[in-house]
Amino acid sequence: MSIPSRSTLLLAPAIAHATTGFDVADGPAAQGRSERLFLRSLSATESAYSDEARALEWLREQNNRVEVRVERISFDRMHRWRRDGTDGAIRHETGKFFSIEGIRVTTTWGRTPTWDQPIINQPEIGYLGFIVKELGGVLHFLTQAKVEPGNINHVQLSPTIQATRSNYTQVHQGRRPLYLEYFQSARPSSVLLDQLQSEQGARFLQKRNRNIIILVDHDVPIYESFTWLTLGQLKRLMRHDNVVNMDTRTVLSGVSYGSHRDDALDLHGALAAEGLGRRTLGPFCRSALSHHHAVHSIDDIIHFLTELKSSYDLSLEKIPLCRVNGWGFSPQEIARPDGKYFKVIAADVSIGNREVMRWQQPMIQPSQPGLCAFVCKELNGVMHFAVQAKLECGNRDVVELAPTVQCLTGDYRAPDSEAVPFIDCVLNAAPEQIVVDAQQSEEGGRFYREQNRNVIVLADQQFPEQLPPRFIWMTLNQLLFFIKLNNYLNIQARSLIAAVAACD
Amino acid sequence: MSIPSRSTLLLAPAIAHATTGFDVADGPAAQGRSERLFLRSLSATESAYSDEARALEWLREQNNRVEVRVERISFDRMHRWRRDGTDGAIRHETGKFFSIEGIRVTTTWGRTPTWDQPIINQPEIGYLGFIVKELGGVLHFLTQAKVEPGNINHVQLSPTIQATRSNYTQVHQGRRPLYLEYFQSARPSSVLLDQLQSEQGARFLQKRNRNIIILVDHDVPIYESFTWLTLGQLKRLMRHDNVVNMDTRTVLSGVSYGSHRDDALDLHGALAAEGLGRRTLGPFCRSALSHHHAVHSIDDIIHFLTELKSSYDLSLEKIPLCRVNGWGFSPQEIARPDGKYFKVIAADVSIGNREVMRWQQPMIQPSQPGLCAFVCKELNGVMHFAVQAKLECGNRDVVELAPTVQCLTGDYRAPDSEAVPFIDCVLNAAPEQIVVDAQQSEEGGRFYREQNRNVIVLADQQFPEQLPPRFIWMTLNQLLFFIKLNNYLNIQARSLIAAVAACD
Repeated sequence: MSIPSRSTLLLAPAIAHATTGFDVADGPAAQGRSERLFLRSLSATESAYSDEARALEWLREQNNRVEVRVERISFDRMHRWRRDGTDGAIRHETGKFFSIEGIRVTTTWGRTPTWDQPIINQPEIGYLGFIVKELGGVLHFLTQAKVEPGNINHVQLSPTIQATRSNYTQVHQGRRPLYLEYFQSARPSSVLLDQLQSEQGARFLQKRNRNIIILVDHDVPIYESFTWLTLGQLKRLMRHDNVVNMDTRTVLSGVSYGSHRDDALDLHGALAAEGLGRRTLGPFCRSALSHHHAVHSIDDIIHFLTELKSSYDLSLEKIPLCRVNGWGFSPQEIARPDGKYFKVIAADVSIGNREVMRWQQPMIQPSQPGLCAFVCKELNGVMHFAVQAKLECGNRDVVELAPTVQCLTGDYRAPDSEAVPFIDCVLNAAPEQIVVDAQQSEEGGRFYREQNRNVIVLADQQFPEQLPPRFIWMTLNQLLFFIKLNNYLNIQARSLIAAVAACD
Repeated sequence: MSIPSRSTLLLAPAIAHATTGFDVADGPAAQGRSERLFLRSLSATESAYSDEARALEWLREQNNRVEVRVERISFDRMHRWRRDGTDGAIRHETGKFFSIEGIRVTTTWGRTPTWDQPIINQPEIGYLGFIVKELGGVLHFLTQAKVEPGNINHVQLSPTIQATRSNYTQVHQGRRPLYLEYFQSARPSSVLLDQLQSEQGARFLQKRNRNIIILVDHDVPIYESFTWLTLGQLKRLMRHDNVVNMDTRTVLSGVSYGSHRDDALDLHGALAAEGLGRRTLGPFCRSALSHHHAVHSIDDIIHFLTELKSSYDLSLEKIPLCRVNGWGFSPQEIARPDGKYFKVIAADVSIGNREVMRWQQPMIQPSQPGLCAFVCKELNGVMHFAVQAKLECGNRDVVELAPTVQCLTGDYRAPDSEAVPFIDCVLNAAPEQIVVDAQQSEEGGRFYREQNRNVIVLADQQFPEQLPPRFIWMTLNQLLFFIKLNNYLNIQARSLIAAVAACD
């Protein structure tokens, strides 16, 4: 098969036809073009270059071919890492990569006014980047099967490049990351997406990465562990546990498909339905594309956030790691006597079969698997997401928009978890209410075998239209609007949004 | 006269008629309503409640009625302020209000990789808020004639409320700020604007204030130093030197008027012209209202910022104020031997004639008046602004969008100022190129007699369409889009944008 799948072909003319009626809410024609490219790729679940089954098989092969050994060691056995004499922080001898430091958090938010904790400090902004190319008229994403020491299943689908500045300035005298030059020399017109996005605010001190997608129109060398996948295929693969890594999910969450008027969307649906009688716009698709019928305006949402950011204080003070209250220190780990939250551990890593790479590094090991869930409900005829404003100590700006339920720091199945709003609605959802349900891994370069259940459920009849304080209804179009801008949605919310196949 | 002016009436039906053809790019109908209210108020330069001449006369009266005495004193004569024993910072004994601290700045931006300086630390978010009300069908802003010790002319037009949290939690046992309860109890539906905005990044450590406008529809008591003014009148008053204070200017800069399609804008123009043959849409009006024809898309601008934020580092370290390199200390001031930048001084303030308020406080005195200017040029048939990305040490996020020319820290008339791009274009502009030209004061509660020349000029034929790195063309509509969101435009850019009468 050398042409795109039927479903791709089907949606394409509808989009082309409706173009003149479109309102690209925030820019000139060039922007409309990338949105159409993304939309077409989203609807292409089959292509000549790969499909879901082949990708899974290919990933299994990659996984079998590589040998990964991760052993816990004591901190003093980490080569080139040491405890800093002045503040007890764990640092690389070059001062690069990242460090584990101690902080004291003070806040007027929540029930705990102050606490200490270890935190990862990684001030460098790295690349999380995809190269994309039109193949057979459909945008394909150059995806890597990448090994990370913390991954449960070793190899997951990652962006084309995943590199900190320490990586690509070659502090470790390793190889220059593949494809780096494409990102460093990209012309503005080839950049389809370029956003600074936050990472886990409870674990990282104000960390951000550069999420970027660049379009190439010439031949690109394809190295052994790389393959082309459409956006639709990547979304399908997210239905499987721990297949698509966190870095891929954050980049894909930033992809938006434009803002359109009702009449243009109706035209889409009608034209598409006429072709096959099958593909009308699903509720999530309409929620992604329509800029009408939202319960709240963008200004309302900004007001909601301004109110919270003005009302609550969050201040951090760096303290010596050895004086972090509530945490105990052994030669092997930094952990709480009550076993809560996470541990800092040291790992000895070796990867490869013929050419073996070996190194040591600190990692974060979570206490238990977590749960991140959005509850959705159709309001005003458009699917809305119940979004929570959440303060996490490493946030750059007090609160970020988070999933309806985000339980990462305690056992969500414990009896006292009833205090978490809406958790019952998620845990007791009937099969027909479940839109997304998969285990997803956090970044395997820092987190040791951390996976969290990612769920999107449709609210039942009892679910209130009036949300409690600190929650607000938003359409997918509005969520995508805020993702474009710095540090509005947290990584957990973005991970869930990445899994929404907006064609549904 | 008990009805709004002719020009108001004229624009009103055009707007009402065109409404159905409007595209409110980012929200439901409620948002469109506030945009129409603002637009109508903008076009109302006369009203039954005041006009430009009367407002100036009233301000003169207020100024004559009040007695203001500000004397420089030595630091040790400031009652309730002291040098902190541990870090030498100047703090209020309550720990509230603000403090003067020392910082060491390290950055890869610009020619100076590291420097020390005193900086104002004021972590509290205060209110800068207007109450607005429809009077005779036109939105009026409840404006205060407010005395600030640093103001050159003592009294300037300020928002309805201007209060730090220390003010309104009454740390100084003063009176509760007038109208505070309106802001504290505002329902979301009455909030027309609510934004967190940055202040001078070279002087303040990541300071922000809450810029807010609330609509009331019931009677409001009008106290002695308050008056109602339309948006159009406030913009007119900004043509005069030092009449409209910084806090008013920042709030008004956030007012936006919607994003519309060409056909709707043409309809406006046609209907308006038919009525009086006079009022077609001026170039700045079209630039504010149109979301077409911009040279760059919103995504392009985000890419431009992401590139800079990813490429340059800015890190701050707090250091003892007494160890700030390059600054000298005397009992009266903290200043540089070379006289550059600014001084920290101590002031003894007494205000009032019958009931006298008296206090002492530290203030910042600039070395010389500065210059802030936008150069504008019609491109693609729409007026564009040459916007500069600028790093200032107190920025929350590395760079903010700044005017084409921003010379505040050196003498812009000195010979070596030729290094400043585009300064000649501003200083040598012919009268017909000048759109805005007035001296404007910085906040008189912190800055001692600081005024900066605010200029908007039209580029001449020689001005390049291709801008140097770190500069980008943006329409007024795009600037207003980014103002809504946190910390994108700096205070100097916002001050200039506030002065643009979008009806021009």
